[in-house]
Amino acid sequence: MHANRWLLPDGVQEVLPPESWRLEAARARLLALYWRWGFELVRPPMIEYLASLLTGAGRNLELQTFKLTDQLSGRMLGVRSDMTTQAARIDAHRMVTEGPARYCYIGSVLRTRPEEPGGSRSPLQIGVELFGHAGIESDLEVLSLMLETLHEMGIDGAFLDLGHVAIYRCLVERAGVSDDIEARLFDIMQRKSVPDLQRLVDAGELAAEAADGFRQLIGLNGGTEVLAQAQSLGRLDTRIAAALETLDMLVTRLQRHYPSVPLHLDLAELRGYRYKTGVVFAAFAPGLGRELARGGRYDDVGAAFGRARPATGFSADLNVLAALGAPPAVAAQAVAAPAGDDPDLLAAIRRLRGEGWRVIVALPGEPAGHADERATHDLVESDGDWVCRPRTENQ
Amino acid sequence: MHANRWLLPDGVQEVLPPESWRLEAARARLLALYWRWGFELVRPPMIEYLASLLTGAGRNLELQTFKLTDQLSGRMLGVRSDMTTQAARIDAHRMVTEGPARYCYIGSVLRTRPEEPGGSRSPLQIGVELFGHAGIESDLEVLSLMLETLHEMGIDGAFLDLGHVAIYRCLVERAGVSDDIEARLFDIMQRKSVPDLQRLVDAGELAAEAADGFRQLIGLNGGTEVLAQAQSLGRLDTRIAAALETLDMLVTRLQRHYPSVPLHLDLAELRGYRYKTGVVFAAFAPGLGRELARGGRYDDVGAAFGRARPATGFSADLNVLAALGAPPAVAAQAVAAPAGDDPDLLAAIRRLRGEGWRVIVALPGEPAGHADERATHDLVESDGDWVCRPRTENQ
Repeated sequence: MHANRWLLPDGVQEVLPPESWRLEAARARLLALYWRWGFELVRPPMIEYLASLLTGAGRNLELQTFKLTDQLSGRMLGVRSDMTTQAARIDAHRMVTEGPARYCYIGSVLRTRPEEPGGSRSPLQIGVELFGHAGIESDLEVLSLMLETLHEMGIDGAFLDLGHVAIYRCLVERAGVSDDIEARLFDIMQRKSVPDLQRLVDAGELAAEAADGFRQLIGLNGGTEVLAQAQSLGRLDTRIAAALETLDMLVTRLQRHYPSVPLHLDLAELRGYRYKTGVVFAAFAPGLGRELARGGRYDDVGAAFGRARPATGFSADLNVLAALGAPPAVAAQAVAAPAGDDPDLLAAIRRLRGEGWRVIVALPGEPAGHADERATHDLVESDGDWVCRPRTENQ
Repeated sequence: MHANRWLLPDGVQEVLPPESWRLEAARARLLALYWRWGFELVRPPMIEYLASLLTGAGRNLELQTFKLTDQLSGRMLGVRSDMTTQAARIDAHRMVTEGPARYCYIGSVLRTRPEEPGGSRSPLQIGVELFGHAGIESDLEVLSLMLETLHEMGIDGAFLDLGHVAIYRCLVERAGVSDDIEARLFDIMQRKSVPDLQRLVDAGELAAEAADGFRQLIGLNGGTEVLAQAQSLGRLDTRIAAALETLDMLVTRLQRHYPSVPLHLDLAELRGYRYKTGVVFAAFAPGLGRELARGGRYDDVGAAFGRARPATGFSADLNVLAALGAPPAVAAQAVAAPAGDDPDLLAAIRRLRGEGWRVIVALPGEPAGHADERATHDLVESDGDWVCRPRTENQ
């Protein structure tokens, strides 16, 4: 097929009308929401020196980052595959303030490979970051704003998945295993495979006592009752107890502020483990099981830029949110105006547009009735005046 | 300096608040303008197969296009350096309609080098394209919308530069010169160098009679009187006469519709000559001499995609327009709310945000008075109610 020559690369989308207008409306609504919550918009560049993009939290983005050579400097550039590191750089070097700083952002990111098979390589990433505060109040603010984001997009019934990476991290530290075993443990936790955990013990790679903790962790997912079930792990280590206490406070607040949002706890969830330091969370669409947004705490993300600060945030792909959500209303009315150079006609067109009407002016030679698909009204001359007449009246 | 490690590459900008908000407001205003004029928003991807990007009108973008290898297909990808070719592909393959089609777009483009020294390599390109109509009415519509764009951005006093590439193209054809000589002629016209033109004649590379035409063309710039001065060229060839007639009709209409916009004609102007086919135009900021927007006719731009249609359009860098224009008002009011979990306080915050207020909630442990810079109001408890009080009243 000839048209196939002009197909887009896998995982690369373009957005056409009317979805393009809905996406634009969604963008405006969400940025207005973040503005009302006191977040400041930053617009980091599409490309940066690779060293900046792959620093700190960006270290694990190496494989998914497209690389370019800068003809001007001879240095390597990267196309951003995530905007979190960029926000940390801005917090450290461009917007240096004492105390909490709130940022929001929106922009295309590019990935060499999709995160999951069939996924997008060009998400329209939107998100917020709150720097400079370590308490649960900032996690709660970011979590709340994530839920408000879904609400603003008309996505109802999403459930929230909560975890805390410090529990696993603490168990690993107490187990005293090598990096190699840790990597295998990480993989086992991702798959929640109790038999594979037992194999590590049988092979003498992991103490039976340590394995007990991990086995218990694998089972710790479900409703909020999970927090009570986890208390025996909390007695092992004060850091685990503190993590459980944080989750408990968050759950209490969330249940009070968003009583209709189903909460799911998964203490073995290690989303973004390499740079996350505390609470991790994600919102899922009901039924679909598809991740809509995710976030968590990643304190000291700015350390690589010389400014270690507490940080928490979330991000989402606006293409996904806009496609799943109830589309914001896009005005469907349009006026078809005839071709012509009559000053009264031109004045009428100008006046209608000034009032917010969409006016599509015919071009000479245009196939008759071409503009009809979109037009709901006609601009017609009547007793020497140009008037806007609904099409139903004509028929 | 340590901070220098995190500088951005030359010609690559990031936009921080408050400019970021103004840019977002400008974006919304311009897309709403294009919507009212009946243009449909398309959102082409940041990357495409290189073959698509460098096809047709994209041929001359080879040097300025960043290239990437697609790990999934093994094929070469390009980062878009211009969105015109993408719009032509969409018109040819995605939005196939009979008759005129109007598109608008906005998005970042990347260039390996700036177009002029010190210029941007990451413009935020915004523009419109009108496909499927060959008459001056579509040129006039696009030109008018370019002027309305500047007006919407609060940029007053811009002047319009008009030309028509068919005049030079016709003279070249009549001169019957080689490609090599044509390249030298093109360069001479860009520099408007009459002595260099004479040297071509002296070297026997160009007939004296042909040189007369080019010499005359070099002199044809100034006010609208230029069109009368060009009549002797028009008598040489009916195609030149037709181009002059087109310009004359456009000038008449523009003077009628936009009497305050200064018009400048430059018939030797060859902006985008390689793919332009008719009228070419640009808007310049008064005093600065800086180009604000440019466009013109490039019929058959979609031929490479199997759909040759008349086409005319313009584009601009929204970063430039937003920086030069009168900034749209960004609401400056913000309410500082105290930290706390009192349900009445939370309800008051929610109500204020629902009314469109910006509410910045303090976080426990925050330095006293931190939110003050942005806050104009305080949310305070008064007789058991939470009320929003302007700061001036407090002082």
